[in-house]
Amino acid sequence: MKSLQYNKLNQDIRLKLESIVGSNFISTNAETLKEYGHDETEDFNFPPEVVVKPANADQIAAILKLANQELIPVTPIGAQTGLCGGALSIQGGIGLSLERLNRIIEIDEKNLQATVEPAVITQVFHDSCKEKGLFYPPDPSSWGSCSIGGNLAYNSGGPKAVKYGVTKDYVLNLEVVTPTGEIIWTGANVLKNSTGYNLTQLMVGSEGTLGIITKAVFRLIPYPKHILTMLVPFASPEKACEAVSEVFRAGLTPCAMEFMERDALDWTIPYVPDFNLPVADHIGAHLLIEVDGNDMDVLYKECEQISVIMEANAGEEVLFADTAAQKEALWKLRRRVGEAVKKHSIYKEEDTVVPRYEMPKLLKGVKEIGARYGFQSVCYGHVGDGNLHVNIVKGEMSDTDWNEKLTDGIREIFVLTKSLGGTISGEHGIGYVQKGYLDIVFSEVELNLLKGIKNLFDPNGILNPEKIFV
Amino acid sequence: MKSLQYNKLNQDIRLKLESIVGSNFISTNAETLKEYGHDETEDFNFPPEVVVKPANADQIAAILKLANQELIPVTPIGAQTGLCGGALSIQGGIGLSLERLNRIIEIDEKNLQATVEPAVITQVFHDSCKEKGLFYPPDPSSWGSCSIGGNLAYNSGGPKAVKYGVTKDYVLNLEVVTPTGEIIWTGANVLKNSTGYNLTQLMVGSEGTLGIITKAVFRLIPYPKHILTMLVPFASPEKACEAVSEVFRAGLTPCAMEFMERDALDWTIPYVPDFNLPVADHIGAHLLIEVDGNDMDVLYKECEQISVIMEANAGEEVLFADTAAQKEALWKLRRRVGEAVKKHSIYKEEDTVVPRYEMPKLLKGVKEIGARYGFQSVCYGHVGDGNLHVNIVKGEMSDTDWNEKLTDGIREIFVLTKSLGGTISGEHGIGYVQKGYLDIVFSEVELNLLKGIKNLFDPNGILNPEKIFV
Repeated sequence: MKSLQYNKLNQDIRLKLESIVGSNFISTNAETLKEYGHDETEDFNFPPEVVVKPANADQIAAILKLANQELIPVTPIGAQTGLCGGALSIQGGIGLSLERLNRIIEIDEKNLQATVEPAVITQVFHDSCKEKGLFYPPDPSSWGSCSIGGNLAYNSGGPKAVKYGVTKDYVLNLEVVTPTGEIIWTGANVLKNSTGYNLTQLMVGSEGTLGIITKAVFRLIPYPKHILTMLVPFASPEKACEAVSEVFRAGLTPCAMEFMERDALDWTIPYVPDFNLPVADHIGAHLLIEVDGNDMDVLYKECEQISVIMEANAGEEVLFADTAAQKEALWKLRRRVGEAVKKHSIYKEEDTVVPRYEMPKLLKGVKEIGARYGFQSVCYGHVGDGNLHVNIVKGEMSDTDWNEKLTDGIREIFVLTKSLGGTISGEHGIGYVQKGYLDIVFSEVELNLLKGIKNLFDPNGILNPEKIFV
Repeated sequence: MKSLQYNKLNQDIRLKLESIVGSNFISTNAETLKEYGHDETEDFNFPPEVVVKPANADQIAAILKLANQELIPVTPIGAQTGLCGGALSIQGGIGLSLERLNRIIEIDEKNLQATVEPAVITQVFHDSCKEKGLFYPPDPSSWGSCSIGGNLAYNSGGPKAVKYGVTKDYVLNLEVVTPTGEIIWTGANVLKNSTGYNLTQLMVGSEGTLGIITKAVFRLIPYPKHILTMLVPFASPEKACEAVSEVFRAGLTPCAMEFMERDALDWTIPYVPDFNLPVADHIGAHLLIEVDGNDMDVLYKECEQISVIMEANAGEEVLFADTAAQKEALWKLRRRVGEAVKKHSIYKEEDTVVPRYEMPKLLKGVKEIGARYGFQSVCYGHVGDGNLHVNIVKGEMSDTDWNEKLTDGIREIFVLTKSLGGTISGEHGIGYVQKGYLDIVFSEVELNLLKGIKNLFDPNGILNPEKIFV
């Protein structure tokens, strides 16, 4: 974006910030700055020059007005669970933590809607809705620690997306503070809206570069009464991917269709003591499949149909999770893959997404590219959506190759993704770590439109600089 | 928007247009111009100075480059079924008919996706998908004559929206010609996308003011096997609206939940000879309800639950449509209301939308406002979504009142809508006829952002001028 000369924080600005948020909610302590300098992306740490913790939209508006006037960069910081470096204060400046905006303002049972603040933890929100028989489906793997604001910023998905859609499919209306310090609402609290351009959807997935979301209104749906969980082992990971597509072509819509390669299983099992299913030596991948609904007979029938399809497509004996504890162990395994890989080795996580049927080609291509560049990859993810997480593991790779040659390998993976009709991020975002690859999926004209939108909302380029755009 | 001085078409520009589209696909014949000067909005006719019928995106790009350079306004013209005057060539100029871009390019059964051109008739697309067991749900009342391009431009809904969502919920990727004549794609053919700002959703509902859609990629879902249809008469229209909310609160999700006031019934029945259910004198409204799915037993159970709720909420004897012919007659009745009102009297159609539970308050308010301003209104629509069509009938109103006082009455209706958490258009768009009311739902800051987006895409303001913005 604009190569702006930002200003450094000075005493005067610090005092003004303090007068906005109060002395208890501002810090320049080195340890605190470091604490707010990272998310879950590799081992990066870019601390801000100051951390502020505003209480509400008005304080955020005042902070942004000041920062915009003084040309101080502002980085919105949520639950710090992001995987593209979106919360890193690359240019220093103000680290704006949303942590105090953490209320579920209303769960409106009459209209099946809810209004929440950005720092509400996703699972907390999900559980609060469930208590009232209502369902907020988006469930990123990190849902126990990530927050709604981050989910909106990156348009997060999760296993349930395959049936229920992603964050963008539930948001109706947003309160946003613009980079120039104005408070706006993007839409209305309605299920259908053809009134002006869709600012709501423009804001979702904009990675905190166009504004700071301070309230979100979501639609909710009835909570499905029953859920059945199955695990299907495959000798060949590619065959597993092929079987996925067959399920949907048969007219079935599972509410989860997750894929884990052998390495993902092996590396993660040690971190899930309650997972006690032996994995036979020849097994190359698992599919974790769920169906949900209100009628058990229907669900049993669906499971039967899925089993038949799996077995006709090289799936081995289908295992049903009979108890809640078994289900939980299976999901712990799936949700902890990212974490386990991280513990195993330095790695980079890619978030490729292609049309569902192209998944086997993508998987095969990733392995071929890895072989040529000498890197190992662990693949897993939401194959029902065509969303494959490719964790590239440093392993035995030399530092030089890792730091210099790998970029070309990742580029090849993304070019392949694009050639299959896909794109470079399905749910993690572009942020700091993928921005160098954006030219693969957008033409210059398209990029200029994106940058034009950024300039329109943020003429001084103060909000979350160094993200999305090179 | 910008008060630009447009240029008039001259012989030189006409010849250049002819060289782009060929002499068979350009016309300045007065009758042809008039034919392309209207849509279904009131009795407006604003003919363009020339009608051109390009064959493809390249020709459209050449036309827009020329128009942008010569400051000639361009109005995209689709199936001319719109209800907000979006296809009217208010400023003359080029009437750009999309009619030749009418191919279903691919229905991809492997990926459950389809690629279509804008002039494909919605019902034709729906039926082509259905033949392959696939479902494209959006079904505006005019689906037999409206086209996909228009559905995208106005983010059209229809009865099925209550369960399946609107046009925006099925579009994955768009090929668009920008007002400056560049061809772009807005996204990728994937179910999940966190790669840059969502240009796809920005384009949907932008009413042909940001670009001309030349190809659309949709996701499809499996076609539900069974459908059951019920009709519930109510003495009180407000009670009918109240009952609607109860159904959803009970955890049921019908695939249609339509409302028709008594006048809508009386005026439409004469146009549906095969509708042969007597409507008792005391009946004030009908609800038309459908459930769909793959298991008949489940559907019967759902119908039973709905019947119980209806009867507990003042619904009278629930009627089930037993035959396909009965179902068809019910739907003909519902789909023809707009047309029937039009034949009955001069009218204006409003497209209010509120959170579902607020519907009875909206209905009551509309009648009160009508009583004060001396206008009759016929209300019907997609109450399951909170989307109430309010057809204001001229009837005995004087021309002076109709032309001068009515605006204030409509404004009151919209202010009420907004105060209930709603907005002024659920599925018809703003276009030419509602733009004067946009200030009710957007602040100046919000409007300036919308206008900024328009200016970014269309710096010379040539594409579909006089729409959305005053």
